Amino acid sequence: MELWFTEYQTPTLGITCKTKKTLHSEKTEYQELAVIETEQFGRMLLLDGIIQTTVADEFVYHEMIAHVPLFTHKNPKKALVVGGGDGGSIREIVKHPSIEKAVLCEIDRRVIEVSKEYLPEISCALDNEKVEVVVGDGIKYVKEHKNEFDVIIIDSTDPIGPAEGLFAIDFYRAVYDCLKEDGIFVAQTESPFIDKELITRIIRDVKSLFPITRLYTCAIPTYPTGYWCFTMGSKKYDPLETDIDSIPDIDTKYYCPQIHRAAFILPKFAKELIK
Amino acid sequence: MELWFTEYQTPTLGITCKTKKTLHSEKTEYQELAVIETEQFGRMLLLDGIIQTTVADEFVYHEMIAHVPLFTHKNPKKALVVGGGDGGSIREIVKHPSIEKAVLCEIDRRVIEVSKEYLPEISCALDNEKVEVVVGDGIKYVKEHKNEFDVIIIDSTDPIGPAEGLFAIDFYRAVYDCLKEDGIFVAQTESPFIDKELITRIIRDVKSLFPITRLYTCAIPTYPTGYWCFTMGSKKYDPLETDIDSIPDIDTKYYCPQIHRAAFILPKFAKELIK
Repeated sequence: MELWFTEYQTPTLGITCKTKKTLHSEKTEYQELAVIETEQFGRMLLLDGIIQTTVADEFVYHEMIAHVPLFTHKNPKKALVVGGGDGGSIREIVKHPSIEKAVLCEIDRRVIEVSKEYLPEISCALDNEKVEVVVGDGIKYVKEHKNEFDVIIIDSTDPIGPAEGLFAIDFYRAVYDCLKEDGIFVAQTESPFIDKELITRIIRDVKSLFPITRLYTCAIPTYPTGYWCFTMGSKKYDPLETDIDSIPDIDTKYYCPQIHRAAFILPKFAKELIK
Repeated sequence: MELWFTEYQTPTLGITCKTKKTLHSEKTEYQELAVIETEQFGRMLLLDGIIQTTVADEFVYHEMIAHVPLFTHKNPKKALVVGGGDGGSIREIVKHPSIEKAVLCEIDRRVIEVSKEYLPEISCALDNEKVEVVVGDGIKYVKEHKNEFDVIIIDSTDPIGPAEGLFAIDFYRAVYDCLKEDGIFVAQTESPFIDKELITRIIRDVKSLFPITRLYTCAIPTYPTGYWCFTMGSKKYDPLETDIDSIPDIDTKYYCPQIHRAAFILPKFAKELIK
């Protein structure tokens, strides 16, 4: 018998992976949560049947969502991750020597607990002494903290269901207020190939709030189309002006100083989205 | 009833697309050839059940395989495409004003004929007056022509079955001899995420023959992992030294002068492949 897991990434497109076994499956207060072991990508975290991260390619997403804003900022001391209960973004954040505190605010306690059990290589820094884990609503947390963080990372699920509010202009406004006067936020904002309307709208919203708005991309095999983007809003520092020669060599598999620059260079069709 | 076409991109990974109808299907002298109409990517050309090109995302592959070498060369007049019977690479080549002649050498006459019938937006330049279409073995053609082309594009299927010889060092040696003294060739060389051994071997082979060897990448949703690479061997011109400010604006959707530079900037794990 062969088992294949299929995610329908759009109503007319799917990715299908041969599966060794289901390691965990439950219905949490918020969503269906599962960890399966696939042949191609190893262990894979699923929320409502959608691939969140896999041990084979998680490095791309987590390195790119964390190091690009952290190295754009001159001296980040305090960072917040909204969502990201698997801990991958936190793991990358604590690699930065200047970081004194990293807060994770994840709404679903079970995502954290299951990641700790089944994805130790991703969640490994959640017990780091610099890390505070808050189980709660990220929108509420952001609204209750003002002028506090150097970097905020919106490490959310897709903009349907529980994460919808994390893609709204009201939330970006709260993020602005939650950042210090030279703060930077980054949000994962889906695929430039198939989420054009969403990205165009987000860019417009962020531009209306932040003096510097940028879009950057990377290659993630298990996400729809394999091509993914992040939107950055920055109060002071421009990632295009980062002195990449000053970026220290850190332990990464995708991110490097040259990629810090190249990730912002968009193909023509994607440049149209940020006009 | 719903019809879904699934390509198994590896033994443990597949892409699946909802399909409106099969427009064409036949067994040619060389392979199974089909054109299907999918909801997500429109018309799609399949050879032996493997996606070759789709009307939705073909622009990435064809622009990147053609314009990068053509704009690296200072004054390309004569270009050869080995394979590429759909005509997409030829369509891009004839956009260059300096091109006087473009030869297509495709082994399977039916690929050309079926592309002309079902993929007119891709094959549209095959009847251009600058284009010569040769139905024949690309290896034989290259071996019989010496010191003749400015740019050679190896627009092949995967390195199994009929195209295997197009990934061999003997063929690259013949390509070297077929190029003029300042010639450049580019070959499609699969995915940096899952074809690491192949790419490492090709880079080593090309380095042993050409003074300048480069790897560049782009994002192609319908190819395995969505992240694709091309290997360039050049006798004189280095694409990293192209004066990108001198590149004229041409009608493209992915390629642009900035991408000409950025495509060669590789994430850390891919840089390992070319060491």
